[in-house]
Amino acid sequence: MSAHDFSRLLTARWASAGSLLCVGLDPDPARFPGAMRNDASSIARFCIDIIDATADLVCAFKPQIAYFAAVGAEAQLETVCEHIRSQHSDVPIILDAKRGDIGDTAALYAREAFDRYGAHAVTVNPYLGTDSIEPFLSRGAVIVLCRTSNAGSGEFQSQRIDGVPLYQRVARTAADSWSTMGDVSLVVGATYPEELREIRNIVGDMPLLVPGVGAQGGDPEAVVRNGARSDGNGLIVNSSRAILYAKGDDHALAARAAAIATRDALNAAR
Amino acid sequence: MSAHDFSRLLTARWASAGSLLCVGLDPDPARFPGAMRNDASSIARFCIDIIDATADLVCAFKPQIAYFAAVGAEAQLETVCEHIRSQHSDVPIILDAKRGDIGDTAALYAREAFDRYGAHAVTVNPYLGTDSIEPFLSRGAVIVLCRTSNAGSGEFQSQRIDGVPLYQRVARTAADSWSTMGDVSLVVGATYPEELREIRNIVGDMPLLVPGVGAQGGDPEAVVRNGARSDGNGLIVNSSRAILYAKGDDHALAARAAAIATRDALNAAR
Repeated sequence: MSAHDFSRLLTARWASAGSLLCVGLDPDPARFPGAMRNDASSIARFCIDIIDATADLVCAFKPQIAYFAAVGAEAQLETVCEHIRSQHSDVPIILDAKRGDIGDTAALYAREAFDRYGAHAVTVNPYLGTDSIEPFLSRGAVIVLCRTSNAGSGEFQSQRIDGVPLYQRVARTAADSWSTMGDVSLVVGATYPEELREIRNIVGDMPLLVPGVGAQGGDPEAVVRNGARSDGNGLIVNSSRAILYAKGDDHALAARAAAIATRDALNAAR
Repeated sequence: MSAHDFSRLLTARWASAGSLLCVGLDPDPARFPGAMRNDASSIARFCIDIIDATADLVCAFKPQIAYFAAVGAEAQLETVCEHIRSQHSDVPIILDAKRGDIGDTAALYAREAFDRYGAHAVTVNPYLGTDSIEPFLSRGAVIVLCRTSNAGSGEFQSQRIDGVPLYQRVARTAADSWSTMGDVSLVVGATYPEELREIRNIVGDMPLLVPGVGAQGGDPEAVVRNGARSDGNGLIVNSSRAILYAKGDDHALAARAAAIATRDALNAAR
């Protein structure tokens, strides 16, 4: 896999699917339908149902590795990623792992994401600095946490350094430095639309992964208005629970309907 | 497991073993001896050899999950942790995972560390703030990254907020807030002894996990002089590669000799 597969796939996908929507794969067996409920061995089956029902509507899929790791379902995550690559090969895979460690260990996490799971991009944490990100960047695309969607994200991220919030310092480092080293994007929560606008102004055309619409309450219209590039693309807007556990007799059809509604809400604001 | 098992075990272990040394389990099959070399299925066997050869010399063991995840060896990590709990039940297990994610996902990572692997403590990243740490603290002990041992750790961690470096802001939050919520310790690299002294002054008697002696070049004497509490304890000084891959005809005996030398170098400075 080349280090630029992610950007290339994502750009092509924005054009061909006409969608900014990313479906997050957060499989919680307690919320599975019917006979799958509370059956951790059904995780891959559930995810594949969702993937096949929504693939034509999305610009990316984002499996969250914690849901698999908590129950020892790494083999099912391998199956899910392999399914996307083989059956929906034009849709990039973002492994949401938020890894962050020093050199040798970071290289092993890169191996986990890119070799074992065949992800096109992996989310990483910037706290340890550039030398903790470089081992990922030299192997594939990284999406660095900038301003996260949780209520307490400002506690450290918004502290001012020479008058500039830490998250803007991260954004500027991404734009000025990391983007020269490889394929880099940033995570900015939908729950902070003003910060999303500031970050877009700092990073130019860099892709932004935006979690927090759907169950977390972020507004799709504000996200697009504040975060999209002038060409209307540039955003990977993630929704997980609101799509995976949409109400309906058939879980795959319900997920598809919820994905269409979110895709259309995003497109209406472009 | 109670949320205070880690502190209790650690305090008892400092007294009974008379050691500040933590052996880090970073199993790299390319460096395994003899017939185990390059055999990823030997990871548990290699780790157990090291554990049994050094358990009486340590205050803790610290498996680094990336070494297992990179090669799909999670089941072997379960075996290693189970071996420590059953055969060396007075030695606490620190899962070095550096996790950091928002609420629901953090709770799943806590489940991974405390339920699946039975760790007594897990390392976490502070970038997402208190609400990302609370789901861990409510389940077990956390060791929060403060000032990491890598060369570039100052890039964000040393940026000044109201005149105070970010890592000191993290240390103060740990001392004032997180310590009231549960069992909290901090990670401070042996490669930054002056910062170690500053952090010790901020956090009082809080335990500090100190990686970076051994292969990374940190000085045991400076670590103890700057980081130990007045009672001579308070430190978990990690060495991984310098012990695991010590030269000698018998890898377990060589690891034991290296562990004794490091333990004694630390004790000589107390």
